[in-house]
Amino acid sequence: MDADVKAAKAPGKRTRNAADTREKILKAARSEFAQHGFAGGRTERILAAAGANPRMLYHYFGGKSGLYVAVLEEALGSLREQELKIDVEHLSPFDGLIQLFEHMNRHFESDLRLVQLLRNENLERARHMKISKRIRDMSSPVLTMIADLLRRGAEDGTVRSGIDELQFYIIIVALNQFHLSNVHTLSVIFDQDLSRQSWRAARHETAVAMIRAFLTPTPIS
Amino acid sequence: MDADVKAAKAPGKRTRNAADTREKILKAARSEFAQHGFAGGRTERILAAAGANPRMLYHYFGGKSGLYVAVLEEALGSLREQELKIDVEHLSPFDGLIQLFEHMNRHFESDLRLVQLLRNENLERARHMKISKRIRDMSSPVLTMIADLLRRGAEDGTVRSGIDELQFYIIIVALNQFHLSNVHTLSVIFDQDLSRQSWRAARHETAVAMIRAFLTPTPIS
Repeated sequence: MDADVKAAKAPGKRTRNAADTREKILKAARSEFAQHGFAGGRTERILAAAGANPRMLYHYFGGKSGLYVAVLEEALGSLREQELKIDVEHLSPFDGLIQLFEHMNRHFESDLRLVQLLRNENLERARHMKISKRIRDMSSPVLTMIADLLRRGAEDGTVRSGIDELQFYIIIVALNQFHLSNVHTLSVIFDQDLSRQSWRAARHETAVAMIRAFLTPTPIS
Repeated sequence: MDADVKAAKAPGKRTRNAADTREKILKAARSEFAQHGFAGGRTERILAAAGANPRMLYHYFGGKSGLYVAVLEEALGSLREQELKIDVEHLSPFDGLIQLFEHMNRHFESDLRLVQLLRNENLERARHMKISKRIRDMSSPVLTMIADLLRRGAEDGTVRSGIDELQFYIIIVALNQFHLSNVHTLSVIFDQDLSRQSWRAARHETAVAMIRAFLTPTPIS
C-alpha cells in the first residue's frame, strides 16, 4: 500500500519539482538579464542562484538564447495580464482607459526589471524578441480592448473620437516608463533626485491629468 | 609687406586651424560615442575619422573621459539652444509652449545621436555627466522660460493653472523621445515598423493634440 502510494505520487512530485526548477531558473535569469543584458548575462551566475545545473537549463530552455527569450516572454506576459485585468464590464470606457494607465503604472513601478529588460533588448535591436511569436501574439488582445473602449466611448460621446489604439497605448507607456528608464541622466540634468517617491507621485498625477484632458471629448464650437 | 601680412595672419590661422581640429575631433567623437557608448567607444577610431593625433585629443580634451563629457555638453547645448529659440515675445504663452514641443521634436527627429548618447549615458548611471557643471547650468534658462510661459498663461486664463515646469518639460521629452529610443522593441511587439515616416507623423499629431488638451484651461463647472 505504502509502496503503491509512493509510486502513484512520484510522477506528480517529479512534475512539481520540474516546474519548480524551471521557475527558479527563470527567476534568476530575469534578474541577471535585467542587470547585465543578454551579452553580459552569465548562465553560471543564473544556475548558481537557481541551484540548478547546465543540463536542466538546456533541457527546459534549449540554451542561453532560449532562456533569454523565455524571460522576455514571461515579463511581457505578466504586463499583458495586468493590463487585461481591467474591469471593462463595470467601468465606463473613459474610466476603463484611465484604469489601464493605472494598472500599467503600478506594474512598472513595482518591478523596474521589466523596464531594464526592454531597454537592454532594444540595444540588441530586438533581435531575440523577433524569434518569439508569443510576444507578437500577446499584444493583440490589449490593442483590441483599447480599440473597443475608444470606440464605445466615442459612440456614446464620453471619449474624444478619432484616437488610434496603438498611438494611445504607446503614449501611455511613454508616460509610465520614460522617467524611470532615464532617471540617472534626468536627475543630473535637472540637479534633483527624480527617483524619490514624492516626485514620482507628482509626476503620476500630472500624467493622469494629461490623459484625462486628452480623452475628454472636445466641445463642438 | 607680404612677410608682414603672413606674420600677422599666422596666429589667426593657427587659431582657426586649432578650432577646426577641436571641432573635427568632437564631431567624430559624437558619432563614435552615440554608436558604441563610452566603454565601447574607441579613441583610435575617433582620431582616424578626425585626421588627428592623440596629442591633440589630450591637448583639447584632457583624455577620453573629457572628450566624452564635451560631446554630451555640446549635444545637450544644441538642444537647449533650439529650445530657447522660441519667439516668446510674439507668441501667446499657449502657442509658446506648443512651439517648444515642436522645436524639441524637430531636434530629436533630425539627429538620433542625441537620443542614443543620453540612453548610453543613462546606462552608465550618468557618472560622466555628473562631472559637468555646464550641463546642470544650461537647464535652468529653459525651465525659467517654461515657468514664465505657464505663469503668464495661467494669469490671463489661456493656460491651465498649477502645471509644474519640470513635470511639463519631462512629459514633452517623453512624448518626443520614447518611441525613438525604443523603436526596435516596440516594432517587434506590435508587429509593425514604427520607424516609418507616416507612423511618426501620426504620432506627432497625437502628441500635439494631447499637449494642447492638457494646456487648455479646464472650464469651471
